[in-house]
Amino acid sequence: MSNCIIAQSGGPTAVINSSLAGVLEKANIDQSIYKIYGSINGIQGILHDQVMDLTELSQNVEKLEILKTTPGMYLGSCRFKLQDPEKDDSQFKIIFSIFEKYEIKYFFYIGGNDSMDTVFKLSKYAKDNNKDIVIMGIPKTIDNDLYGIDHTPGFGSAAKFVATAMLEIAHDTYIYNMESITIVEIMGRNAGWLTASAALARNTYSSAPDLIYLPEIPFSKERFIEDIRRIHLTKKNVIIAVSEGVRDENGEFISASSKETDSFGHVHLSGTGRTLENLAIDSFGCKVRSIELNVLQRSSMHLASLTDVNEAFLLGQKAFEYAISGETGKMVTLNRISNDPYSIEVASISIDKVANIEKSIPLNWISPDKNDVTEEAIQYMKPLIIGEASVKFRNGLPLYADISHLRFYN
Amino acid sequence: MSNCIIAQSGGPTAVINSSLAGVLEKANIDQSIYKIYGSINGIQGILHDQVMDLTELSQNVEKLEILKTTPGMYLGSCRFKLQDPEKDDSQFKIIFSIFEKYEIKYFFYIGGNDSMDTVFKLSKYAKDNNKDIVIMGIPKTIDNDLYGIDHTPGFGSAAKFVATAMLEIAHDTYIYNMESITIVEIMGRNAGWLTASAALARNTYSSAPDLIYLPEIPFSKERFIEDIRRIHLTKKNVIIAVSEGVRDENGEFISASSKETDSFGHVHLSGTGRTLENLAIDSFGCKVRSIELNVLQRSSMHLASLTDVNEAFLLGQKAFEYAISGETGKMVTLNRISNDPYSIEVASISIDKVANIEKSIPLNWISPDKNDVTEEAIQYMKPLIIGEASVKFRNGLPLYADISHLRFYN
Repeated sequence: MSNCIIAQSGGPTAVINSSLAGVLEKANIDQSIYKIYGSINGIQGILHDQVMDLTELSQNVEKLEILKTTPGMYLGSCRFKLQDPEKDDSQFKIIFSIFEKYEIKYFFYIGGNDSMDTVFKLSKYAKDNNKDIVIMGIPKTIDNDLYGIDHTPGFGSAAKFVATAMLEIAHDTYIYNMESITIVEIMGRNAGWLTASAALARNTYSSAPDLIYLPEIPFSKERFIEDIRRIHLTKKNVIIAVSEGVRDENGEFISASSKETDSFGHVHLSGTGRTLENLAIDSFGCKVRSIELNVLQRSSMHLASLTDVNEAFLLGQKAFEYAISGETGKMVTLNRISNDPYSIEVASISIDKVANIEKSIPLNWISPDKNDVTEEAIQYMKPLIIGEASVKFRNGLPLYADISHLRFYN
Repeated sequence: MSNCIIAQSGGPTAVINSSLAGVLEKANIDQSIYKIYGSINGIQGILHDQVMDLTELSQNVEKLEILKTTPGMYLGSCRFKLQDPEKDDSQFKIIFSIFEKYEIKYFFYIGGNDSMDTVFKLSKYAKDNNKDIVIMGIPKTIDNDLYGIDHTPGFGSAAKFVATAMLEIAHDTYIYNMESITIVEIMGRNAGWLTASAALARNTYSSAPDLIYLPEIPFSKERFIEDIRRIHLTKKNVIIAVSEGVRDENGEFISASSKETDSFGHVHLSGTGRTLENLAIDSFGCKVRSIELNVLQRSSMHLASLTDVNEAFLLGQKAFEYAISGETGKMVTLNRISNDPYSIEVASISIDKVANIEKSIPLNWISPDKNDVTEEAIQYMKPLIIGEASVKFRNGLPLYADISHLRFYN
């Protein structure tokens, strides 16, 4: 008999709790597992001995079902990079003493790039110090920028929200008989995947987004103005998807060139969408508005992709199975077998091939004009938003898992 | 045999097309109706003779079902107030000549305050000039600020979106172990109903929104800071709902006191949420963010309230029935019979009792501290968000009505 512990880290996605539910479900039915623990606020919960018992939750089928479709992170989060153990291994000593205290045999870390770095360091430390503890990474990020995986859990749901919002914004825009420019700012500091997913909104009656600007391509204000002018020749309403992370030729964020002065005379940075809104107002005489989709992109479980929820859950389950079978220092991953019909397989990949590498959109998936993505990119993204997660509602609102324990710890 | 014509006006709601579908469904089965027309872009479509034939659409059960759950406005919109006919009746002469051209007996106008003013003027003109044309108003607005009706169609769906977004933002916020302030800016220039609806998000584990600021109450920056400081004594995360329309003691929009300077040195107004974000940054050392829910509040049909969709549809049906029975110069309206169980009845009200009057939140429904609403307000709003509209999905996206005809006219 041994125990396991799970933690979550980084920015939330709609489905990071689906992976947690997957681990819990498998751990519950495995005879070799006695106690299942959760670390509060990622690896920091282990460092500070803030650990909660999840064993009862793992036995409650109804609660697991609700957890599976709860946004945010049931165990809380952190943004924290472990020190280099070769320089200072004090953090590692604490972590492994806590593992010992709770008789932990398996540690599962659900997260993005930083979390996979933690998995990498912990598994290397365990190996170097002959610690018999399995360290397993479970990927998540709306940014889809993890290496070694076809696509990351969380991306499909965020993409479904972005594309749906874009379609609904188009319906909101086409009703007026006037020239207009609508700029939709989408998350993604370095990788443009989520911004690209806006292209999925296009259909027989709506061309929105007419233009797509990605952080992979240096942003030119002149080209932006010229692009809008060209679209306006044939369409009254120009609808634009832009990544929050677009930078100019010098690598400076576009938003950084625009400042706000508040009523006290203090200066703050404007967002990218607002900056481009002001640029368009100055350049065109028509109605201009910018819309920032903001955190709803990563928290709108009410519109999650069923494909995404199921894959996140499956990766949680498989991570547990790989761990039990003795694999360590790995991340569970998805390989795509085919686009149409869509088919994936789960595998595991050595964590040193994943950690600290960011995956951008391949340049040959960006249109020659640098203001759109190619059909190949669209075909890649299309299957990931399919299906609607069945969220329960009570009193007209989504029924999500009770997270009052976070207030106790936080 | 006679013909009828329908138009839509003002800002969109998720369910304004549900009312259109209701009129179409009844008009289709009525033996006395020959042709059903739609005016493109509200009353302007009649002025400019931009009229489309909706007879075929009204016979297509499947298309009507999709129209019923399509956001935006199928017939396009306008923001247009008719002249005072006593000063200049040229617009009225054109409108009634177009009615004559298309042999119109019934005109249905779906809209908010401005549209009800149009219904008022047209029905008065018809009466004064012995025109045998029935003029009927069908209410809509997310603002819930129409007089003479318990609540407006469109408000319930917007409220459901706002409350759900607030709950999901809470899940996104509670995960970090740090002090934070989150400011959510909600639509409503003069009436705070939609901002108040954020209160519906509260549950056993989430107090969000901790503070609510409405345009009905003069906004005080000092009280705002003090309120946050008080909440922070017991809670790390303060989540705030604020109306875009909050004004200071002098009636100036809060947003108007904050300016942005873009990279060309031009000055633009910041939004209310951003202005308060900057104020909070200057006043507190913690993480601060503002989120503007923007047009998704009025266009998120994917999360529409079933109660709202059904009521909007019913009002469209009833408007037709009242019109056929000879009523004119009226608006269809909803009277509440009881809160629990929720029960309403449809009636008609003389348009002169409705037009040009805005309904704010009663001051006794605002808490004594002026930063919240009372339980009575919550009980009033609660039934309006119940039930989920069953939107069809195709390829992972909502299947909405084809609006390519708007591009033809616009």
